[in-house]
Amino acid sequence: MSRHLDFYFFIGSTYSYLAVSRASALARAAGVSLRWRPFSLRTILREQGNSPFLGKPDKTRYMWRDIERRAARAGIAFSGPTPYPIDPESRAGHVATLAETEGWCEPFAREAFRTWFLDKLDPGNPEVLAGIVARLGQPADTLQRSESADVAARYVANTDAARALGIFGSPSFVHEDGELFWGDDRLEEALEWACSRP
Amino acid sequence: MSRHLDFYFFIGSTYSYLAVSRASALARAAGVSLRWRPFSLRTILREQGNSPFLGKPDKTRYMWRDIERRAARAGIAFSGPTPYPIDPESRAGHVATLAETEGWCEPFAREAFRTWFLDKLDPGNPEVLAGIVARLGQPADTLQRSESADVAARYVANTDAARALGIFGSPSFVHEDGELFWGDDRLEEALEWACSRP
Repeated sequence: MSRHLDFYFFIGSTYSYLAVSRASALARAAGVSLRWRPFSLRTILREQGNSPFLGKPDKTRYMWRDIERRAARAGIAFSGPTPYPIDPESRAGHVATLAETEGWCEPFAREAFRTWFLDKLDPGNPEVLAGIVARLGQPADTLQRSESADVAARYVANTDAARALGIFGSPSFVHEDGELFWGDDRLEEALEWACSRP
Repeated sequence: MSRHLDFYFFIGSTYSYLAVSRASALARAAGVSLRWRPFSLRTILREQGNSPFLGKPDKTRYMWRDIERRAARAGIAFSGPTPYPIDPESRAGHVATLAETEGWCEPFAREAFRTWFLDKLDPGNPEVLAGIVARLGQPADTLQRSESADVAARYVANTDAARALGIFGSPSFVHEDGELFWGDDRLEEALEWACSRP
């Protein structure tokens, strides 16, 4: 049986750092393949009038502490709060989308989040982004190619697909039967779901 | 060593149904005592411009499904969405506060949430509330006593204490060292924290 989950993630979602860091190992152990799908959560949050953290200092303070605790439990490096929000022009999101079409989405996402959380740099900054792409051994014209209309259209299409699935946050895991799991803390449940389907 | 957690809950928070239903058994098994503290999450959400579900149909649909799945995992009865929001005049919150001073807060909270989730009735409705109080064997003047200035002041004081602790959601679990855990899905972590302190 083929078991898989679509893994919708947004470069800019803090909790997604945990999922991007640990999803592959857990999925592999469970025998589930993940399809990495970058999308614009920002677009959906704006449409829905949903502002999870901006203007909410208590919730934001808790979020960083919660990530710290959960990173420690999962053995994921964490060194405190990092710039937020990031990638205002969706440059990193577009490179992730190009990478999705070329088969290097996961390593890009991991390196983008590592750079954001551990180097404390905005992966949407063109120089930072060029460094990430170079470290992955991708060609120098990658950023330029990520600015094409095709890539932009695919990023919009991924976002449209996410919206149609009822996604309102990142990370989200979706089974082919439509079952949706939101949050790094639902990763295990999503994998169990995928494994329990006929 | 005495191990305990303050358990802040709001009668009107949907996810709190899960925590109210399962917190005592887990805490007992862990050797942790819980102090049940009703507070007005509505007050804090309004102050913080935080509207978790109202006007967010996708997130609300997910919330009910997520509760359904997690209730099934925990062996908690659930029969679908129930009226929301409830208790607009904080009547049930005030009875919970009176009950806190008299030592019957936990059975009241359990019966109020059971009535809300399984009978699909607003526990803030005076007739429904009178029925809950009667089923618990409390005297007929309980509702009247819950409308005193003292009870109202205590409910405000609990809310002030919650705010001072950085609480912005329900359920929340707080250790005496100030460590805060938000959400039914953090109950196990909160208990582990309480057990791991010197």
